[in-house]
Amino acid sequence: MPTYRLDIEYLGTDWHGWQIQPSHPTIQGALETALQTALRQPVSITGSGRTDTGVHACGQVAHFQFDQPIDNQRLLASLRGLLPRSIAVRSILRVADGFHARFDARSRQYRYRLGSLPFAIDEAIRWYMRPAPDVDRMNEGAGFLIGKQDFSSFCRTQSETENRICTVETAYWHAVPDKAGALDFVIRADRFLHGMVRAIVGTLVDVGHGKRSPESISTILAATNRVEAGFAAPPHGLMLEQVSYPSDSPAESNSPG
Amino acid sequence: MPTYRLDIEYLGTDWHGWQIQPSHPTIQGALETALQTALRQPVSITGSGRTDTGVHACGQVAHFQFDQPIDNQRLLASLRGLLPRSIAVRSILRVADGFHARFDARSRQYRYRLGSLPFAIDEAIRWYMRPAPDVDRMNEGAGFLIGKQDFSSFCRTQSETENRICTVETAYWHAVPDKAGALDFVIRADRFLHGMVRAIVGTLVDVGHGKRSPESISTILAATNRVEAGFAAPPHGLMLEQVSYPSDSPAESNSPG
Repeated sequence: MPTYRLDIEYLGTDWHGWQIQPSHPTIQGALETALQTALRQPVSITGSGRTDTGVHACGQVAHFQFDQPIDNQRLLASLRGLLPRSIAVRSILRVADGFHARFDARSRQYRYRLGSLPFAIDEAIRWYMRPAPDVDRMNEGAGFLIGKQDFSSFCRTQSETENRICTVETAYWHAVPDKAGALDFVIRADRFLHGMVRAIVGTLVDVGHGKRSPESISTILAATNRVEAGFAAPPHGLMLEQVSYPSDSPAESNSPG
Repeated sequence: MPTYRLDIEYLGTDWHGWQIQPSHPTIQGALETALQTALRQPVSITGSGRTDTGVHACGQVAHFQFDQPIDNQRLLASLRGLLPRSIAVRSILRVADGFHARFDARSRQYRYRLGSLPFAIDEAIRWYMRPAPDVDRMNEGAGFLIGKQDFSSFCRTQSETENRICTVETAYWHAVPDKAGALDFVIRADRFLHGMVRAIVGTLVDVGHGKRSPESISTILAATNRVEAGFAAPPHGLMLEQVSYPSDSPAESNSPG
């Protein structure tokens, strides 16, 4: 059946995460409702993965199947009218039949934003903390995350996922240009466990504050026990930035003339 | 008397602009109230210039005088608690006596954000419009703005400013990396007239939509008459980004250890 890819951006502040729930507003639920209204037929969408309550995305990807012709630009415009302003479908692309947003994803990239001087414009998406953590220490700690390892120590204890092996390609902090006191953490991996990025950020902030050594990240990983790691950083600093596919047809190709 | 410089960021959405008004909430008013509470004495602040209702800033500069010692870091923390989340004082610096945020400013830089594909994260600070304007045409038109000229045609008619001569150093549009359909306009000048950036953006969008020629910008300038230019773009896309001073002591120098 014809398959369509959606590239989605959302401000997660007021939503109970991605995954549809019977009694709470969710991103997936809002999208399915809007698509059903626009296409006059029930539509099920599948995301590349869940995001938790309060987490944002500028590069979430989902797919759905639909057996009638779709005018992509017109549907894009309809969805803008039908969706709340905190959710935006950025592009709709017909993709190869059988494309699967979750199973076909090769890697995911998240960004975590924090700042140690007051800010206002990015208040909804950046974690304010004092004092400023030491970025060099955090990067030394982050280095131990790279590679194929068991990340059980950074996985929420209630998680039912049995396979806790992830391959982290990239994990580093950098100062944000022109924004004093702002630090962004970028992490890319083939897959992420439940609560993994927030547990990693919370633990690295401990390292940055001198409460743990950079080498402790290695010890924590080896323990494969969530209690060894630090607290979870708050959700509002986290954003799903990019999901990559082998057959990447970038969303840009859908930009209007 | 000892003079202090404030570097200020604000989301202008809910404010009636910068300048204090008796019956409406303004940024300047909120800052003076917070400073008075923190310093237990009335304080008058002077900004580098006004911003209109709904306009944002990430680089507004103001100064005030105060005759007692100030613990900058402590005052910064107090102000964070006292101010609403949409206003942030990012740094407080003791500067040379006689520093004047408005008269000493050498140039101001504004950014205008627009996007022709739906977005959510930057909904509060980016103007959504369809169809996408042609960026090459807009840049051709923007080229005519450069230099020392009379900008009466881009000045709000009610403005009482007699001197309408401004020197524009920079004015260009560029595609935002990793954000399909997003275009940012950056303009820097020694001074700006009332409503000038929004009138320029509205007119350049006409150029980008083929309703005016790029050369028409030159004709409009020569007419020195506001009716020749286009409509004013909405305020929420506009941000005061930077104010430069001859003696620039960047706000970064105040970042915490």
